[in-house]
Amino acid sequence: RATCAIAQSPGPITDLPGTPRGKLSVIGIGPGSDEWRSPEATHELISASDWVGYDLYLDLVANLKTSQTEHRFGLGKEEARVRHAFNLAGQGRDVALVCSGDAAIYAMAALVYEVLDSNTLTPPEQRVEIKTLPGISAFQAASARAGALIGHDFCTISLSDLLTPWATIEQRLQAAAEGDFNIAFYNPRSLKRTDQLQKAIDILKPHRPPETPVIIASNLGRLTEKVKTVAFKDFNPTEVDMLTIVLIGSSQSKILTRGDGKAYCFTPRGYANKKENLQ
Amino acid sequence: RATCAIAQSPGPITDLPGTPRGKLSVIGIGPGSDEWRSPEATHELISASDWVGYDLYLDLVANLKTSQTEHRFGLGKEEARVRHAFNLAGQGRDVALVCSGDAAIYAMAALVYEVLDSNTLTPPEQRVEIKTLPGISAFQAASARAGALIGHDFCTISLSDLLTPWATIEQRLQAAAEGDFNIAFYNPRSLKRTDQLQKAIDILKPHRPPETPVIIASNLGRLTEKVKTVAFKDFNPTEVDMLTIVLIGSSQSKILTRGDGKAYCFTPRGYANKKENLQ
Repeated sequence: RATCAIAQSPGPITDLPGTPRGKLSVIGIGPGSDEWRSPEATHELISASDWVGYDLYLDLVANLKTSQTEHRFGLGKEEARVRHAFNLAGQGRDVALVCSGDAAIYAMAALVYEVLDSNTLTPPEQRVEIKTLPGISAFQAASARAGALIGHDFCTISLSDLLTPWATIEQRLQAAAEGDFNIAFYNPRSLKRTDQLQKAIDILKPHRPPETPVIIASNLGRLTEKVKTVAFKDFNPTEVDMLTIVLIGSSQSKILTRGDGKAYCFTPRGYANKKENLQ
Repeated sequence: RATCAIAQSPGPITDLPGTPRGKLSVIGIGPGSDEWRSPEATHELISASDWVGYDLYLDLVANLKTSQTEHRFGLGKEEARVRHAFNLAGQGRDVALVCSGDAAIYAMAALVYEVLDSNTLTPPEQRVEIKTLPGISAFQAASARAGALIGHDFCTISLSDLLTPWATIEQRLQAAAEGDFNIAFYNPRSLKRTDQLQKAIDILKPHRPPETPVIIASNLGRLTEKVKTVAFKDFNPTEVDMLTIVLIGSSQSKILTRGDGKAYCFTPRGYANKKENLQ
């Protein structure tokens, strides 16, 4: 059942009261290359009225800019960024909150819901349409460039203890080591956080053969891209900086050096074993 | 030092011997929607001379087909598919091995390297250029549709014991449970494998509160897409079929029901906790 009220206006209605329902798109633009950005992300960026994001990420999509208003933020202040985006969307605007990689993987999408859940938003902000846009994350790009390290079960762990207590991270590291997962380390190191990666390596050491492949990758898909594959025993954590992602294989992962001298790495799914069992 | 030999031909050289170096691109086309397929994948598919892949995946990119020769395979026989792709590339062709999602995540890229490493290929096959193309995987699309469940450390586990012994899978499940990871289950169930998902749930049960969000998603990005969020205590593994992916939150994940009655879920990164500590 529904009730409907109808009325006739004496003239055309032009001055409508209220504001349209705003929209907040949390957009994963991929690692940086246009070739890895989803068409969905491109279309949402083009149709948005406002772009909110960290300077570097807005630079990466600058070639798409037409009439959008930019709201640039420095590193950090993530919550201020999200609240600003809600504020604009609450005014009926079509807001793109720009993230690198996937919008949910160590980016802003979870924080958008965390802020929404905190009951600190105004009613118009609380009503905005929210859309999360997935994207290719750095671990996927790093694995692809170096072969197929994530060819079997994997996990991602952020080594930043700014928001997560180190004891929780250590528990995850221990679990990932014992579970023999391929592991991607996000936020492995910063200027202030210099010890975490070495501690992580120490936890992994008893569980990984010395020849386990390690991928060290930065600026994926950009002109300054660097990707290097080394054996676990030769990995030097002090080579890693805050723009780098580190992938470590499972005990089954292998390095394969091809005829051109380049090293590739992969984690077999087990077809070779299957054949042996059948013999 | 290098030695160089120069000779003069009596006429234009038109009948060059040998074949060009072939190319094998292992292409992740994303979950199925054109909007989630990377431009890189689209460009490689268009420029390829041959497409090799499972029927359904070739259907998903049929709108890009021009003069490519299709090599369609049924489910299974993954190794035959890879060997066929190497064979074509070994003849100098530009071969697209088509995968859904990300080419490395439970797809064909690792098997390509496994076959290459087996020393069973002919010299021309062994020399082909290999390129892995990352793509948006089903777990990313499922999380995005339902909010931001993968907003903190997560892992993916395939529940198929066709190639991996169940004891290894069980060890990973135990580790993922104790490590409090968000978890994505690939291959949760098939017609023959009906028990694994229930066993996985039993392992997780002591480690996850009854209200932990579970996402059940299938046919992501396609017309028949289904995405549902339920509480762990209400999750029924028999509802899951072989085309479905299942995501289970960590102990920190939350379900948030919005004004429109829809349930979203996310895993906070900890900004709320940080604020409490600062008070």
